[in-house]
Amino acid sequence: MFIGVDLGGTNIAVGIVDETSKLRYQKSKLTRNERKPEEIIKDITDLITEVIKDFGIINEEIEAIGIGIPGLADPKTGDVIECVNLNWRKVPLKKPIEKALGIPVFIDNDATLAGLAEYEAGAMKNKKSGVFMTLGTGIGGGIIIDGKIYTGANGVGSEIGHMIVGENDYDCNCGRNGCLETFASSIALINYTKKLMNEENSETIMTEKLNGDINNLDGKIIFHAAIRGDELANKAVDRLVKYLAIGIMNITSIIDPEVFVLGGGISKAGTFLVDKVRAEVLKNKYFKTLPVGNIVLAKLSNEAGIIGAAMLGKHNV
Amino acid sequence: MFIGVDLGGTNIAVGIVDETSKLRYQKSKLTRNERKPEEIIKDITDLITEVIKDFGIINEEIEAIGIGIPGLADPKTGDVIECVNLNWRKVPLKKPIEKALGIPVFIDNDATLAGLAEYEAGAMKNKKSGVFMTLGTGIGGGIIIDGKIYTGANGVGSEIGHMIVGENDYDCNCGRNGCLETFASSIALINYTKKLMNEENSETIMTEKLNGDINNLDGKIIFHAAIRGDELANKAVDRLVKYLAIGIMNITSIIDPEVFVLGGGISKAGTFLVDKVRAEVLKNKYFKTLPVGNIVLAKLSNEAGIIGAAMLGKHNV
Repeated sequence: MFIGVDLGGTNIAVGIVDETSKLRYQKSKLTRNERKPEEIIKDITDLITEVIKDFGIINEEIEAIGIGIPGLADPKTGDVIECVNLNWRKVPLKKPIEKALGIPVFIDNDATLAGLAEYEAGAMKNKKSGVFMTLGTGIGGGIIIDGKIYTGANGVGSEIGHMIVGENDYDCNCGRNGCLETFASSIALINYTKKLMNEENSETIMTEKLNGDINNLDGKIIFHAAIRGDELANKAVDRLVKYLAIGIMNITSIIDPEVFVLGGGISKAGTFLVDKVRAEVLKNKYFKTLPVGNIVLAKLSNEAGIIGAAMLGKHNV
Repeated sequence: MFIGVDLGGTNIAVGIVDETSKLRYQKSKLTRNERKPEEIIKDITDLITEVIKDFGIINEEIEAIGIGIPGLADPKTGDVIECVNLNWRKVPLKKPIEKALGIPVFIDNDATLAGLAEYEAGAMKNKKSGVFMTLGTGIGGGIIIDGKIYTGANGVGSEIGHMIVGENDYDCNCGRNGCLETFASSIALINYTKKLMNEENSETIMTEKLNGDINNLDGKIIFHAAIRGDELANKAVDRLVKYLAIGIMNITSIIDPEVFVLGGGISKAGTFLVDKVRAEVLKNKYFKTLPVGNIVLAKLSNEAGIIGAAMLGKHNV
């Protein structure tokens, strides 16, 4: 058995996952990220102990613990390099938990681990290489090369949201301009749609969903309107798709994976989104017969974080 | 012993390389790329036979032949997928040469193989991962992951020149806009410098080197002027460096290699270039302590093509 921990800015989720990547039991609590790292790490340790007890097994039956963090991890030292959501910088995570529980601990980025879950039990199963793209409020990535997760020499690879793909009219949180995240995340989509709606003589069926407050606008409303043929919503979606396709082509030009897996909130737009992305990638091919990895939707949803973290443990023991 | 073939748009170069990556003997002839593929392939075969004979050995002493092509290769089938310089599309290369000589043949992209040469005998030696960037009239790449060359699922990876890094005022040969190659190749540098020189009131010490004809402008003149402090030349070089740094950061965000190796004509600007690139990459870090692979100059020069091709054979037999 393996323990998977999905450490988020809002929740800490801990689950027991078996050899076949099946989530057997899980429990979560609030992160309360305003607290010190030590307090949050104590909560993780306690929740793991609780989950093991609830499930009726003992520590010795757990082969490894994997932890996914919403930031940059150094898989070698087991330290968190940088984690904006938690306000952590250079925080040891592996060591204190190993010390408390006597079970080997491994850590990595949460999107990387969601990618690993898709590789073990989802859309990348049986593929030798693939890139998982989580399109949410931000954009993260999980890269599989030769059947293993790959985060590079310093553990800072697969940060695909910060790949520069063009020039944008506002800067990224990271301080640079043109990051994929500023074009193809849900926040980028909402911001750009608002901008179009604020233009003179703009017309859209989205207005009726907002109860008079443009701040009620979200990705779901935009995609619903786009599917119903709303011109303004489609203009916004098409811009997202344009840059997402550039991102996919850039990744192809570097590592040419067998498959691209779209996950995260934006991917809930389903085949409507995938069809548009495939068509745009086709337009981007620099010669007609250029082979590009298949573009598909993620198969797992919320549980991917825990499953992937647990599988990190499995890969390492 | 291994044979390395560097098939270029201008020359076919064939060499004998030993187990320790040392080039022992070489010979070359003109490609004359206006001819049919079969004629060029016959020339390659004949030149290999000649080199083996000249060196005083027999076919059975050659373990493998590697061929680098200036385009996209399918390493699995041994076919050339696309090669603009030679005007080849879907041309079998491995099979006819194996049939003629009875020696195993392997093919790959020339920049990829120059990268392999740097890995075996140059600036990437003893590194687990690295990216070789050849900055010439175009931009190519060679990627090493876990000690092996990596060109992806379909063999179209490591085409880093076609990674989109911004928006440019002219399109790339590939039909798209914003490719790294349109910012950071020697042609891009020359075009942009000409543009600056044609602006009103432009002043530059480069004028005296041109004998009255702006078409005499080349990368060497531009870098020499930049090193001497010429403002216009530095403006052009700094733009190249800006986008090269974005390319390096994009690659870091995806595969985070241990080292970046700069090769090709542009890299002859030496430490002047490397210092500028390192400073620009530093400015691009999205947090201060972000670890980025070391940026260094290539160690091999013209012979990299033959050595890398020969080492492709060594890796495969």
